[in-house]
Amino acid sequence: MKNEIKIFSPATVANVSCGFDVLGFALDTVGDEMTIRKVSQKGVKIAKITNQNLPLNVTKNVAGVAALALLAETNVEFGFEIEINKRIKPGSGIGSSAASSAGAVWAINELLGKPFNKTELVRFAMEGEKLASGVTHADNVAPALFGGFTLIRSYKPLDIIKIPTPKDLIATVIHPLIEIKTSDARKMLSDSVTLKNATKQWANVGGLISGLYTNDYDLIGRSLQDYVAEPFRSKLIPGYKDVKQSCFDMGALGCGISGSGPSIFALSKGEKTALKVAEAMKIVYSNVGIAYDLHISKVNNKGIKILDTI
Amino acid sequence: MKNEIKIFSPATVANVSCGFDVLGFALDTVGDEMTIRKVSQKGVKIAKITNQNLPLNVTKNVAGVAALALLAETNVEFGFEIEINKRIKPGSGIGSSAASSAGAVWAINELLGKPFNKTELVRFAMEGEKLASGVTHADNVAPALFGGFTLIRSYKPLDIIKIPTPKDLIATVIHPLIEIKTSDARKMLSDSVTLKNATKQWANVGGLISGLYTNDYDLIGRSLQDYVAEPFRSKLIPGYKDVKQSCFDMGALGCGISGSGPSIFALSKGEKTALKVAEAMKIVYSNVGIAYDLHISKVNNKGIKILDTI
Repeated sequence: MKNEIKIFSPATVANVSCGFDVLGFALDTVGDEMTIRKVSQKGVKIAKITNQNLPLNVTKNVAGVAALALLAETNVEFGFEIEINKRIKPGSGIGSSAASSAGAVWAINELLGKPFNKTELVRFAMEGEKLASGVTHADNVAPALFGGFTLIRSYKPLDIIKIPTPKDLIATVIHPLIEIKTSDARKMLSDSVTLKNATKQWANVGGLISGLYTNDYDLIGRSLQDYVAEPFRSKLIPGYKDVKQSCFDMGALGCGISGSGPSIFALSKGEKTALKVAEAMKIVYSNVGIAYDLHISKVNNKGIKILDTI
Repeated sequence: MKNEIKIFSPATVANVSCGFDVLGFALDTVGDEMTIRKVSQKGVKIAKITNQNLPLNVTKNVAGVAALALLAETNVEFGFEIEINKRIKPGSGIGSSAASSAGAVWAINELLGKPFNKTELVRFAMEGEKLASGVTHADNVAPALFGGFTLIRSYKPLDIIKIPTPKDLIATVIHPLIEIKTSDARKMLSDSVTLKNATKQWANVGGLISGLYTNDYDLIGRSLQDYVAEPFRSKLIPGYKDVKQSCFDMGALGCGISGSGPSIFALSKGEKTALKVAEAMKIVYSNVGIAYDLHISKVNNKGIKILDTI
């Protein structure tokens, strides 16, 4: 049995316009690097975190809490030590806490010989999400663990569907370096939605899922519309309208808020368009005068990956 | 060029639980039979209607109105005569008006050498629906014209997606012979829906569409849930709860209101289960003491069919 594993746990884009609270996809070029090793002492220890100032206290760290949730359903007589090279900035809206939570439980499951399936791992990782945001949501941890696009059909019981990913689908994600509290993003939403808008939303979910199954890029593009969150939450993101317009001008299929923001994602057919979209996004934020991070990535169809095993 | 065509235009189940206002599928064993022939006199004439007492006045007949909408976009120097053997009872909730509207425009399009595509035919047929219900909806005419399952992704512009149909999917439809006015069924619905329920609804739309693409009958079953219309509209249908329970007892994948009722549909994997479901449905209405029609049908993947050409 392996004793130590080094993994890449991807950043993820949740919601994906029409798929509010149910859809997400994984990125390939940005993610946390984590090393998880078996140690004789029972329990979980966060040994080291680099690149970000995050709590080492296991009950206050999302990866720690997720790992503890998993271990609580085992009888192992040893423990695990976690090192996190935190590449995804917290608060970016691309699943920073989810990557660490998902990575921890995925790696421990590997080291234990895979006693749990992916849906069970999602359940454990959601405990990390609960610590991070107060809500046990799965729309980031599911794509991190399953890879590609995922649909959370139901929470009770947890029912996650992996959706195919057309191979030329490239994401461009810009993270304007501003803070939006998840709680503020939530407050922007009403508890209800008009039946008319709700109907448009699920029509687009149907269209997006169809487009993903049939590699119909145009249909994917036509379906990337959000009547529920974007009209309200976009107000919290300076330059949003301009970014969106410039994405379409450059030929993006669609553009929306990643998770609850502030990151903005676009999906394009092919890398060439994705690069043009990236340039256009940069120009907007250079003009607005807000610093940003930028990611161009194919959709990561595999999810978490092993970098090294000892 | 053909001068006369006899067609079968199928009954259809709209809404399909989670797919309120956007999904529908076509039936194979119940539908209107229509004969459409070219005549020298311009315009449209409803020559004969058998089996139901419906208006022969072309502007008051759904097939007539749909046909006129099509002809208004042509320059033909002749006209068409329509005979309808009305096999689908009006007010049944299985797309009676849609079958006649769709059949008329489909047949005329055939006789004209197919100048219009199916989406354009939906647009014309929707004029018949407008006459019937006051609303230009497409969730019955689209499956009648495209066959199989259809998704209305958008009305402006009209965007209809044909979804694949797993071959063992069998519908059982019972039509309790009571009257529910579409306007009453509409009144049962609120103008708004909680975000929580709306999210569940589009998660299920995503699940249903995925299940249809992957022949995952269990997923189809799990996704056939309606948080929007069924809780309210089912109150208008005596025996609804019992029918639904008995469908599940017999192994149906799901059960819901067909359109706005009163018909109730169930979907099953395989004919054997569909037949058991039918027997169970019958028993409920025999006990309730309401007469009924019953249809067992595979999903009609072709839509309208030619019966005879002269």
